[in-house]
Amino acid sequence: MGTESRLVRWICWLTVITAFFMTGFLIGWFARPTSTDTSNDEDSSRSMRDFLDEMRAENIREHLRKFTRLPHLAGTKQNLRLAEEIKEEWLEYGLDSVEMVPYDVLLSYPNTTQPNYISIVDHLGNQVFNTSLAEPVPEGYENISDIVPPYNAFSAQGQPVGDLVYVNYGRTEDFSQLEREMKINVTGKIVIVRYGKIFRGNKVKNAAFHGASGVVMFSDPADYCATGVQPYPDGWNLPGGGAQRGNVLNLNGAGDPLTPGYPAKEYTFRYRLEEGVGLPKIPVHPIGYHDAIHLLKNMGGPIPPNNWKGALNVSYRIGPGFTDTFQTQKVRMNIQTNNQVTRIHNVIGRVRGAVEPDRYVILGGHRDAWVFGGIDPVSGAAVVHEIVRSTGRLLRRGWRPRRTIVFASWDAEEFGLLGSTEWAEENAKVLQDRAVVYINADSAIEGMYTLRVDCTPSLHTLVYKVTKQVSSPEVGEEGMSLYESWHKRDNWTDDRDAPRISKLGSGSDFEAYFIRLGIAAGRARYTKDKKTERYSSYPVYHSVYETFEVVDRFYDPSFQRLRAVAQVRGGLIFQLADSQLLPLDASQYADSLTKYAHSIAQLGQKHQDALITYGVSFDSLFSAVENFTTAASSFHERLKTLDRTDPLQVRMANDQLMYLERAFVDPLGLPGRPFYRHVIFAPSIHNKYAGESFPGIYDALFDIEHAANPRRAWEERWLPVVQPSWATKQLKSDVFLLQQLQDFILETRPNNSQ
Amino acid sequence: MGTESRLVRWICWLTVITAFFMTGFLIGWFARPTSTDTSNDEDSSRSMRDFLDEMRAENIREHLRKFTRLPHLAGTKQNLRLAEEIKEEWLEYGLDSVEMVPYDVLLSYPNTTQPNYISIVDHLGNQVFNTSLAEPVPEGYENISDIVPPYNAFSAQGQPVGDLVYVNYGRTEDFSQLEREMKINVTGKIVIVRYGKIFRGNKVKNAAFHGASGVVMFSDPADYCATGVQPYPDGWNLPGGGAQRGNVLNLNGAGDPLTPGYPAKEYTFRYRLEEGVGLPKIPVHPIGYHDAIHLLKNMGGPIPPNNWKGALNVSYRIGPGFTDTFQTQKVRMNIQTNNQVTRIHNVIGRVRGAVEPDRYVILGGHRDAWVFGGIDPVSGAAVVHEIVRSTGRLLRRGWRPRRTIVFASWDAEEFGLLGSTEWAEENAKVLQDRAVVYINADSAIEGMYTLRVDCTPSLHTLVYKVTKQVSSPEVGEEGMSLYESWHKRDNWTDDRDAPRISKLGSGSDFEAYFIRLGIAAGRARYTKDKKTERYSSYPVYHSVYETFEVVDRFYDPSFQRLRAVAQVRGGLIFQLADSQLLPLDASQYADSLTKYAHSIAQLGQKHQDALITYGVSFDSLFSAVENFTTAASSFHERLKTLDRTDPLQVRMANDQLMYLERAFVDPLGLPGRPFYRHVIFAPSIHNKYAGESFPGIYDALFDIEHAANPRRAWEERWLPVVQPSWATKQLKSDVFLLQQLQDFILETRPNNSQ
Repeated sequence: MGTESRLVRWICWLTVITAFFMTGFLIGWFARPTSTDTSNDEDSSRSMRDFLDEMRAENIREHLRKFTRLPHLAGTKQNLRLAEEIKEEWLEYGLDSVEMVPYDVLLSYPNTTQPNYISIVDHLGNQVFNTSLAEPVPEGYENISDIVPPYNAFSAQGQPVGDLVYVNYGRTEDFSQLEREMKINVTGKIVIVRYGKIFRGNKVKNAAFHGASGVVMFSDPADYCATGVQPYPDGWNLPGGGAQRGNVLNLNGAGDPLTPGYPAKEYTFRYRLEEGVGLPKIPVHPIGYHDAIHLLKNMGGPIPPNNWKGALNVSYRIGPGFTDTFQTQKVRMNIQTNNQVTRIHNVIGRVRGAVEPDRYVILGGHRDAWVFGGIDPVSGAAVVHEIVRSTGRLLRRGWRPRRTIVFASWDAEEFGLLGSTEWAEENAKVLQDRAVVYINADSAIEGMYTLRVDCTPSLHTLVYKVTKQVSSPEVGEEGMSLYESWHKRDNWTDDRDAPRISKLGSGSDFEAYFIRLGIAAGRARYTKDKKTERYSSYPVYHSVYETFEVVDRFYDPSFQRLRAVAQVRGGLIFQLADSQLLPLDASQYADSLTKYAHSIAQLGQKHQDALITYGVSFDSLFSAVENFTTAASSFHERLKTLDRTDPLQVRMANDQLMYLERAFVDPLGLPGRPFYRHVIFAPSIHNKYAGESFPGIYDALFDIEHAANPRRAWEERWLPVVQPSWATKQLKSDVFLLQQLQDFILETRPNNSQ
Repeated sequence: MGTESRLVRWICWLTVITAFFMTGFLIGWFARPTSTDTSNDEDSSRSMRDFLDEMRAENIREHLRKFTRLPHLAGTKQNLRLAEEIKEEWLEYGLDSVEMVPYDVLLSYPNTTQPNYISIVDHLGNQVFNTSLAEPVPEGYENISDIVPPYNAFSAQGQPVGDLVYVNYGRTEDFSQLEREMKINVTGKIVIVRYGKIFRGNKVKNAAFHGASGVVMFSDPADYCATGVQPYPDGWNLPGGGAQRGNVLNLNGAGDPLTPGYPAKEYTFRYRLEEGVGLPKIPVHPIGYHDAIHLLKNMGGPIPPNNWKGALNVSYRIGPGFTDTFQTQKVRMNIQTNNQVTRIHNVIGRVRGAVEPDRYVILGGHRDAWVFGGIDPVSGAAVVHEIVRSTGRLLRRGWRPRRTIVFASWDAEEFGLLGSTEWAEENAKVLQDRAVVYINADSAIEGMYTLRVDCTPSLHTLVYKVTKQVSSPEVGEEGMSLYESWHKRDNWTDDRDAPRISKLGSGSDFEAYFIRLGIAAGRARYTKDKKTERYSSYPVYHSVYETFEVVDRFYDPSFQRLRAVAQVRGGLIFQLADSQLLPLDASQYADSLTKYAHSIAQLGQKHQDALITYGVSFDSLFSAVENFTTAASSFHERLKTLDRTDPLQVRMANDQLMYLERAFVDPLGLPGRPFYRHVIFAPSIHNKYAGESFPGIYDALFDIEHAANPRRAWEERWLPVVQPSWATKQLKSDVFLLQQLQDFILETRPNNSQ
């Protein structure tokens, strides 16, 4: 071998070795992940499937059975014991931590020795009729003690005596019709109204505002019985002896009446009872329709308009007072309900996020019930319990979500959303900085027809995506997705060819998170067919007949519907906690805003003169919405090309998505309601349950339409009544927030100025 | 060669090749950076040195010279032209973008045809003396037009006539002494007070509250002349013909009086003038001490206490009215000042951050001046100009800060911090989510002694670090650091062996950022020796004698002091924008809180009875502060072992540091002052300039001490007057925020629950 050929050979070898070295280097270089953010969407979607499949109908049935054996009224020992049980089981299921969080809030209970009732008294003061002191106890529960009789929590104490006046549903427009068209004044009278249409606290507020000395509320069969359905226990209708419990506060988001704005801890300043927020000054009491017949049947005065008539076999005369031989009879209320500061307990469980522990995805629902809570709230709490169990299983198999998940079992929801609001108040700063979403878990079923979802517009897309991964629970729809089943039954035809999604109102625990703090929020449950079933909520609502059996026998015998709701609620939480990029949709928000702007402007068109008088123009609103629409769509364009391997780029985009909802919060709040701060969604001041878009402007326009003299009202008595001139102010501050929003979205566009 | 040996040889080769491949792989694997966050602290500190060295004294002199040739009153053409000039130069210097941001706010100017003045009138109504209509114009400025005469912006119009009453500095305690000890009632009288000690707007509020029909304010030589110094132009003392301009609003952080809470844009709702925030209802006018002698010399009534006596050759009798033969004479004010909505312009410049463009470090100071603004604000604006120039130089050399830097030239600061507050209102959401710090740049010099820094406690450590990198500007201190020079002159002996740092009060543009939004803030300037120089601010403050020459001849002939201030302000901005981990110190905050808690409790000890009456206990305050101290120290321990190569870990820690200041914001604000929301630092309601710690509690205790009947005051007239019982409420809500803070810091401790 010559030197030359040896050289050639060595060069060859060197080349080969170098090539191998370089190949190794290059493979090493590119094999190394450039970021600790090793999220893998495929893994995540496999885990999502496992997570949904893990939830079992029979488990939900067991949870419901176990949690509804005893009453669990807020502030009672039974409800504390249930909290402890839930805490232990959540720990057993495998959550990282579970804690009990107590608060001392104002609750309200009937006096145990002096029961509440309503009498008809003759001219000598003799009681010729008394309403019943309790509901007939359903079969199987005869030995249960501590069933609280029907009452309206936070009613004032007192024995007002007077003539009855019937005011339909007690809405603003009912009182306005009564005073202006029928010329009937309720000052010093006892008002009788039927439950339904609006929140009962608003009925009481209206009655007190018009001078009534007491309020009787009854459940009319027209509003609480479905056609062709038997009363419980043979069917799911409200029996004549059943009555609806419920608080009559007007908190407007304040939480505990004595500690508005601050958590009700031992170190917190408490107002005196007389200074408490939202407490009614007059007695209020609920009755069933058997008792109502006795109060209504002899009433005198004018025949009411047809839409004031319920389904009882009485004439629904307006009064005041009784007719003919009964004219000397009066009605007397006997109300001894006590307010008292009482300890309540939230249960808070956590799963720490693997990548972003400082981002929170919250699933919360209440635990306290008026009696057994078969539907409200335990159908929901049982669903949460199964979601927690499923989460625990996945954790044990090594999965851990990207973000922190918080599970909450709230206390004292029935007394004004107290547990959830106090916790929001205690953790306001951290939640404001870190909460991605709040999913609410109250009653999971209120009908047997299809899914109902209320949520912020940025969640629409995700809700559709998740429901496509869940199976329809309906018999005969095997192989059909929940999305298809829902779409078939409730197509949102006037908006789009997709299932209808509603706005969030209030009346459940999402309120402080969504309306005060501006955290994206949503809720899902199974519901009735609104086109044909016209009763309010569901017939046995807040009565002793809300049992395990009402669900097991009628609403969901296979528990497949509750399982589907569990998969929707759980699926939302899963996706929001585990997706690398938050599945929130700014463009959907823009679409909804466009729709809302048109509808509020249309409402305005009905009051052209007033709009001119008060200088209200919607032009700047439309221009702000348009700007936001453009910004949102370019933001989502940008997301498509985002470098997903750069953890900071991902985090910055997620921050923008997370803070989008926050941008709608006006720190000064809506007129007269400092704790309702979301300018796009809040209840109208006339109805706590209804979520109005642009509530500030809406209320101003409503006042233009209905109030005789809102200015007087404003000055003299009722601060939160909006003046028409507020329409301008509110419109303009809403526009400002929208304008700001556009900047917010645009602000971190990539390298715009380098 | 046998098969065996060939095999052996191949195995050898294979091993070698594999070894090379593996070596390559390993080198490749480890050579690849695991993160895009390639921050290099060494580079950054070299750039910091370049940045500081780039700033030149002679440039600052030039900027000052150029910007002080003409008056630049807010709302005038000259000030708009200056804004345009600054915009152009900032662009030339190399900022990424510079924009003009206009607002239409309420300003106030004297009537050009009917001048303001004060007369002494005899019993026939003849004017026997009139105060001067203008200050004697300083040499060299004789041909300048548009010098606004001394006036108090936003004074009410009117010609009140009455007896004079002298009320010292017009403080709460002065009026209280007048009414209770001297038994003198000022209802319907014209009050004369000397400037100094507290914000002039508070003097007017106090006078109006006590029923005065007008206020005359004068500069007493005791408060506006230094001993042994000649009046301008021979020295830097206030001449007898000079007077202090200034607004007399009581905005409490509201910004534009007609658009509180919202930016004054074209789409914003404006209140009517009568509804405007903080506008005084009585005429107010400022005079110099030559004119004051004429008003004071013949006054009757009691001889005042010694601490009510100034340095004029008069008796400082209290009144009411004149003595002896002058008894029939009265004083008449003639005030024709107009309020009008006027366009103002901020200039906003930006340098986009390379790594975290969504984090903002803000350097802002005002541009508008009462006249030439030689000190206020141009000494500060010239310094900012030089910092911007230096930033541009570094950018051109390839440097780019980690975070975004925002430079702001505010308008209409003199009219109530309007430009800065409107911008904060317009960008509130984005700032709340993204602003790291706000450094204020008003007057850079008010004395010739040493450095003065007022800042939030979390900046203390950084301030010391930066001042150690700056040289002392004092002659004879070559080679000494600014830190040493400052330490020598103003040792904070009662707190620590280090230079004194003060709390932030108000009276300049940081207010909306710090007190409303809770953004960490600080300011730095050169100051006098407070131990020996007892005059208020600096003698020529807000007079026509604030010229270029007063700085060039007396305050800083070498411009080394202004350069040192530029290096401090710039150095802070640089470090906050470029450090990988934010140089904010939570433990320093904890230390300060401990100190404040002790001092507020000590103040409480003076009023033991009241504390018992109102149920005030400081125990929970101390416990909250202790909890926070522990949390802060463990947080900083944790930072030491933070994985700095993990961009998410760094970002999460920085978020905690950034949001620390935000945690002190109470969204409900201080009692009666919705825009003062920082519970640890805000002005007392009795003095806008003074930054009190725990201002809510402080004011309640102050009221216990001074107010005869605060309850009456509260109900009848002056909403923001605090009731003693608020001490409890305020203390408790402060404690709540502190408790929450502890959670905030603890919340993301690493893997605490996995």
